[in-house]
Amino acid sequence: MPRKPNTELRRQQIVDGLLRTIAAQGYTGATIQAIASASGLAPGLVHYHFRDKREILVTLVEQLGAYAASRFQARAAVAANARERLRAYIDARLAYGSDANPDAVAAWVMIGAEAVREPDVREIYQRAVRQEIALIRRLLRAYLLECGKRVHKLDAFAAGLLAFVEGVFVLASNARTLVPTGFAADMAAAWVERYVAAELPVAGHAVAGKKTVRQKSKGGQR
Amino acid sequence: MPRKPNTELRRQQIVDGLLRTIAAQGYTGATIQAIASASGLAPGLVHYHFRDKREILVTLVEQLGAYAASRFQARAAVAANARERLRAYIDARLAYGSDANPDAVAAWVMIGAEAVREPDVREIYQRAVRQEIALIRRLLRAYLLECGKRVHKLDAFAAGLLAFVEGVFVLASNARTLVPTGFAADMAAAWVERYVAAELPVAGHAVAGKKTVRQKSKGGQR
Repeated sequence: MPRKPNTELRRQQIVDGLLRTIAAQGYTGATIQAIASASGLAPGLVHYHFRDKREILVTLVEQLGAYAASRFQARAAVAANARERLRAYIDARLAYGSDANPDAVAAWVMIGAEAVREPDVREIYQRAVRQEIALIRRLLRAYLLECGKRVHKLDAFAAGLLAFVEGVFVLASNARTLVPTGFAADMAAAWVERYVAAELPVAGHAVAGKKTVRQKSKGGQR
Repeated sequence: MPRKPNTELRRQQIVDGLLRTIAAQGYTGATIQAIASASGLAPGLVHYHFRDKREILVTLVEQLGAYAASRFQARAAVAANARERLRAYIDARLAYGSDANPDAVAAWVMIGAEAVREPDVREIYQRAVRQEIALIRRLLRAYLLECGKRVHKLDAFAAGLLAFVEGVFVLASNARTLVPTGFAADMAAAWVERYVAAELPVAGHAVAGKKTVRQKSKGGQR
């Protein structure tokens, strides 16, 4: 079996070093010197493998995205329908499991805060947020269609579900003892069920064996 | 009218200086020198007015808490019942208004991220989170009782509502253009309405003029 190229190992050491540096002192204070020191490498090697700090951050965010995607795909692979695929997403983001990684969650929270002040970080963060919203929209849309419901307020609900996930990440990282253990996934799933239940059926769509007529939703409040 | 004491003005300058310093480089990198420089004061004056950096942070978090409390109280003062008081809370945290302060929201997001790595910050942050959860619990409990519903899963729902608020703060601070404008308050209010609607009524409680019997909830999913 061929050895993993040395370049890959070095690059991974440097990305891990950036993560440790952000965790210890934030992105702004993460000089190449500090990243090198946290990686156990000489600064020259960092410069050899990455053009600049921003490129290391892009790689780190890509890795966090790949980790999040693999959690989802492992669960979605055994989902039988759109409802289960949406639940697979919720569990991938919010339920614990053998593949849970609190460090990745904490890193994401810290990168989100760095994005407030650092335009470079914000651009990279927003790219990830855009992808996540697109994924949630696809999953919600498929579930609404599967239920014979009209597709409505999808952008707002996708943003709301993402906000909930981001907020759970914040509280899980800095106030874990103050919230009930494992409350988040079931709550998000129940929220989605109620949102879909409250949506209007598509006129003439067969639900549970009989035709439904267009009727006023009762679940909303305004 | 007596002038505001000079001490108060100086302390406020220093607290504002800490906020600017956190915004620019994080709490870890906020030396007394940096805070003094951001306040336009000599470092000796910072040391004169505050024992240490932690004490400045405590004051800043107290001020953010007082700002959040005043937003809520202004709206709760005109609320006629528990339902409107809960809506007043949601609007105070999530709706825009003439008293909206994006800087305070961004500061809170950054302090939340600092709390992940800094035990001092975490302790102060958690104190504020504990108070916020207690407030949400009281408001939710009063609304459930007003509706004749049993008080159930209050801790989980309070944590969920707080997570949603925190997540909206994150997205409002670093990805505002990617989420629909002003989506959050109505969504949280609808979520609360559905949660309360799905709860079991207290046996024998009169709702809308007739006695209800204990029945299985249909809205939840587990």
